[in-house]
Amino acid sequence: MTSQSLERAPLAGRSREELAQFLAGEKAAYDELVAAGLVLDLTRGKPASAQLDLSDRLLSLPTTAVDRDGVDTRNYGGLEGIKELREMFAELLWIEPEQVVAGGNSSLVMMREVLVDLWLHGGVDSERPWSQEESVKFICPVPGYDRHFTLTDWFGIEMVTVPTDENGPDPDAVAELAGHDPSIKGIWIVPTYANPSGSIVTQEVAERLASMSTAAPDFKILWDNAYAFHHLTEEEAKSADILSLASAAGHPHRPVMFASTSKITYAGAGVAFLGGSVETVKWYTGHLGKGAIGPDKLNQLRHVQFFGSADGVRDHMRRHAEIIRPKFDSVLSVLEEQLGGLGIASWTEPTGGYFISLDVQDGTAARVIELAKGAGVALTQAGSSFPYGRDPHDRNIRLAPTFPEPAEVEKATRVVATCARLAAAEQLVG
Amino acid sequence: MTSQSLERAPLAGRSREELAQFLAGEKAAYDELVAAGLVLDLTRGKPASAQLDLSDRLLSLPTTAVDRDGVDTRNYGGLEGIKELREMFAELLWIEPEQVVAGGNSSLVMMREVLVDLWLHGGVDSERPWSQEESVKFICPVPGYDRHFTLTDWFGIEMVTVPTDENGPDPDAVAELAGHDPSIKGIWIVPTYANPSGSIVTQEVAERLASMSTAAPDFKILWDNAYAFHHLTEEEAKSADILSLASAAGHPHRPVMFASTSKITYAGAGVAFLGGSVETVKWYTGHLGKGAIGPDKLNQLRHVQFFGSADGVRDHMRRHAEIIRPKFDSVLSVLEEQLGGLGIASWTEPTGGYFISLDVQDGTAARVIELAKGAGVALTQAGSSFPYGRDPHDRNIRLAPTFPEPAEVEKATRVVATCARLAAAEQLVG
Repeated sequence: MTSQSLERAPLAGRSREELAQFLAGEKAAYDELVAAGLVLDLTRGKPASAQLDLSDRLLSLPTTAVDRDGVDTRNYGGLEGIKELREMFAELLWIEPEQVVAGGNSSLVMMREVLVDLWLHGGVDSERPWSQEESVKFICPVPGYDRHFTLTDWFGIEMVTVPTDENGPDPDAVAELAGHDPSIKGIWIVPTYANPSGSIVTQEVAERLASMSTAAPDFKILWDNAYAFHHLTEEEAKSADILSLASAAGHPHRPVMFASTSKITYAGAGVAFLGGSVETVKWYTGHLGKGAIGPDKLNQLRHVQFFGSADGVRDHMRRHAEIIRPKFDSVLSVLEEQLGGLGIASWTEPTGGYFISLDVQDGTAARVIELAKGAGVALTQAGSSFPYGRDPHDRNIRLAPTFPEPAEVEKATRVVATCARLAAAEQLVG
Repeated sequence: MTSQSLERAPLAGRSREELAQFLAGEKAAYDELVAAGLVLDLTRGKPASAQLDLSDRLLSLPTTAVDRDGVDTRNYGGLEGIKELREMFAELLWIEPEQVVAGGNSSLVMMREVLVDLWLHGGVDSERPWSQEESVKFICPVPGYDRHFTLTDWFGIEMVTVPTDENGPDPDAVAELAGHDPSIKGIWIVPTYANPSGSIVTQEVAERLASMSTAAPDFKILWDNAYAFHHLTEEEAKSADILSLASAAGHPHRPVMFASTSKITYAGAGVAFLGGSVETVKWYTGHLGKGAIGPDKLNQLRHVQFFGSADGVRDHMRRHAEIIRPKFDSVLSVLEEQLGGLGIASWTEPTGGYFISLDVQDGTAARVIELAKGAGVALTQAGSSFPYGRDPHDRNIRLAPTFPEPAEVEKATRVVATCARLAAAEQLVG
């Protein structure tokens, strides 16, 4: 630890001389880190090996290939997935089994399918296919999930941002956009422990989104509940029941919900889920059936046998929390120790999910990421939590602490903090 | 067996009286079948339980989740699939590993993805996305695979038919269509043991398709080699090497090849493959990466461990043949016994694949299928081997003998034969 780290006074208030001294100290600290030849990675929200190990009983399941209803899961068929698993996740997602489709290993693929269907054919409440609209725009709360933005952009859909806070997207900004422009066709939401901020959409915000009037009759809330059960603390967030809220408000087909076991069992070999109104489910499986015969039902049965029940899933998630909570604690304590009080950074303290969102001094995020790379620490590309990779303030950095070993998480965070201090000082010295 | 079945003289040459007698006999035979209250199904090309059992060692694999290259297959990543499996199937498909993508459990889904990519973005050799063309048409050799047609129609792509014989599609008809009309963007081919005819595309036909000049620069051969290894006899067909042929002819990006283990291991939980030029593979994974993180690599590793080698796949297919060959023999012998010489039906005698294609008397296929339904035997819907479900001669019926037990296959075929005789007699009596 350098002597400067003990000074908790905001950098902005220091004299030119003090700043120059601080900068020199950080440069020296940084050079030491570079010399250490580290190779660390905080880029992606991947489960650690120890988390994957929790599910290794899957490797010798299923013990029988026939499900409760007598379906031979080895054979073709069953577009909507096996009933046992749909029931289990319907309970977990607080919806009805007939509102759930159990699919393949990727909810992102299901999102792509939904957008392709909307694009080529329109939704249950569309006047025409989206491809026949003059223009299609989507609301993207920021910071958000880069893969949502990449996928949206792939369709040529224009992305419009709205700010988020700890309660989710700003509902006034969303209502204003959706209420007046019929080309605004939907919004991406990660309702629980959002990527990257960890924010949780409150009941009030969810109600606003579900009930607001929209200029487009087929406005969609793509409700990506990827971290629905991914609590880090005893304070387990309960996601707002968006389907019931939307239905009660007279917009039953507005939300399409996604979830998966990618971060419950295996990131590459889990099961993904889609939820919606019964009509939405029929619409989705109807289009799916034009180019698919059925998901991997055997893997679905494997998951049924592994979990046993919805409570089995909940218990399993507590074991994940035990593994990853110390890593989050480590990041947070290093950030506080290294950056607290300097007035050059703020960060989220999530109670679940996979990320910590760090805002460094405006205009320095790209520089921090470049410096970290120079010291052997890979961070997600600057701007990646924003559509088109453009962070208007160049300040956001997504930290993903789950994958590396705890000691590495701490080391990598120290590097990030040093780089944030150095970049801030560089900028202030000018 | 009715006395009429011994008469092998063509129905068309018989007197009015003889025909009336034949009709009465068939009616009686049919009524007996109806009274028997059968429930049989020859609709879909599904593996039988005994075939699925051949792969049940998969249920306790993999023994380790780490592949040869050290990749933890439980985690995210690896869009193109694991290398070991790509190498194995590259050998089986006579192409290079870098020309193969190992995907999820469905080659049909990969076909859909390829068409979506062509539609939204165009191929490596396209001037523009297909959705921006004034019209897009596809050549469909008939009879063909109903799911190809359903998928094509889902895009609003117009389907144009060409006839097939035992050597595959008529290459003159294909060249004529593709050579002059730039809106003709491709052709579906099931090269080996085609669905439903069992025909095998010869080297000569493959060469013509690979080398013909096409008005569209981005003409695609969608080469669905679903039955590449699905031999029924010692006479094992070797599929034409369409990628090399196309490359040699200066059209390396023309073919996109598909295959899967759906009818090798598990129909619902196998692995699908895409093959093409290296550029095609990059194009495909490039688009895939906009909305997917990776396939179920764990299931891929499971397959690697199960097969051991390409020869392991070949050996495994011989065990399938032992199970299904008697079913094919049973259908063929009943058809010969019941319909031979009557001049009212012809059928294919495939050396591989999953189907027998039966042509009944022109104008009676729908009636035969209706009659069979009345007697408790489900057959694929009339016309289903033709685009838009329209069989211009109303004569084709696809028989799928793999799924039922051998005794049921025989019984069901007897019903079909009786219905074909009855329908022909009804028509001739008028």
